[in-house]
Amino acid sequence: MRRSAAWAENLAFLVTTNQTITMSRVRISITMSIDGYMAAPNQSLENPLGVGGMKLHEWVFGLEEFRKTHGQSGGETNASSMVVNEMFENVGAVIMGRNMFGPIRGEWPDDSWKGWWDDDPPYHMPVFVLTHHGRASQPMQGGTTFHFVTDGIASALQRAREAAAGKDVLIAGGASAIRQFLAAGLVDELNLSVVPVLLGAGERPLGDLGEAGLVLEQKRVVDAPGVVHVRYAVRRGG
Amino acid sequence: MRRSAAWAENLAFLVTTNQTITMSRVRISITMSIDGYMAAPNQSLENPLGVGGMKLHEWVFGLEEFRKTHGQSGGETNASSMVVNEMFENVGAVIMGRNMFGPIRGEWPDDSWKGWWDDDPPYHMPVFVLTHHGRASQPMQGGTTFHFVTDGIASALQRAREAAAGKDVLIAGGASAIRQFLAAGLVDELNLSVVPVLLGAGERPLGDLGEAGLVLEQKRVVDAPGVVHVRYAVRRGG
Repeated sequence: MRRSAAWAENLAFLVTTNQTITMSRVRISITMSIDGYMAAPNQSLENPLGVGGMKLHEWVFGLEEFRKTHGQSGGETNASSMVVNEMFENVGAVIMGRNMFGPIRGEWPDDSWKGWWDDDPPYHMPVFVLTHHGRASQPMQGGTTFHFVTDGIASALQRAREAAAGKDVLIAGGASAIRQFLAAGLVDELNLSVVPVLLGAGERPLGDLGEAGLVLEQKRVVDAPGVVHVRYAVRRGG
Repeated sequence: MRRSAAWAENLAFLVTTNQTITMSRVRISITMSIDGYMAAPNQSLENPLGVGGMKLHEWVFGLEEFRKTHGQSGGETNASSMVVNEMFENVGAVIMGRNMFGPIRGEWPDDSWKGWWDDDPPYHMPVFVLTHHGRASQPMQGGTTFHFVTDGIASALQRAREAAAGKDVLIAGGASAIRQFLAAGLVDELNLSVVPVLLGAGERPLGDLGEAGLVLEQKRVVDAPGVVHVRYAVRRGG
């Protein structure tokens, strides 16, 4: 009896695995302080991650892999390099919240704001920006195009999946977008890079998710200088 | 110039290391959900860790090392076993908050409540309970004695250090006691066991510590089934 139950479980696992390989997945990859914040309070033009928020990302700035994608040479290689490489591996489209795109709130005064990045943003693929205020799609150099979605996360995901053409969709942030996609049970994989920082206040990507009925399974741990990277598989529970 | 600065730093490091070896340290070792809680809301006699809080500790219940300290045989051994063993290694006294000792609030009606554990609690050393309501020390079987401290955390630490006689002091919990000791800059080592659970509400041991000026350094990561154990050195920053 026990053996046949185990056999059935293995079969179910193989079927699930097989589906996972061929399906486009929805992934999250964020850096979080040990007190649960992914950005500090008071975001502004000068402080895209809020006042003090940049120290969340100190683990990444010195890496060769990061510098390369931002047009710089040099830098070091360590256990985090693999994690940085994986972030966009097999990703065909990105979704982000409006605050991750820029500091402007309310109506767009004009089309002059084109994201926190330079003319060649580090995405090189379609990026869908969640907003309540419509705007024409904004093509950039290097293959990035910003599309503005005004009818919610499900619609953004549908458009991103179509654009990704079988590849994965990355929910890049910010905290509110992350929470919404997790709460709706739309996420397959959560990559947390946890840094030894106590921000004390700010944006909590995993706040208020107790009622979402999510089941997380720890899949991989990478011990790197000044950061631990943990990958979780995410599904809706029974 | 640079070489002599490096030499001075190395010397300072050696002196610091030497002091650390001979000094009693204050350590924290707690299990936390990935959304930052170490207990769920609504603690009661039936639910010492709040409603749903027990699932934080599923990683430990099946371990031989845990079962042994709770008078049970059998169980498994995995990467978490070492972490469980280390928790009380070289610890000479324990400090805990009143809610970790019991569900009673306000004045003690009598001395009948003797902790969440049985007649032989798994500490086997002096345990200092933070409370606003005095009570005679309570000796238990197996070497545990509960002492009740009514004059604050600094006094509790002083008494615990004396009792520990050169060994370390473990701040066992709960969240409020952890926060107070961290905020006061009294902690040398923080061991976080992070589990893939989203509680959504409860007690946050690392909440509101943004102004404490703490500098944390990631010292060790242990990848274990269903949990990742991260050790941080803690000090007051400049």
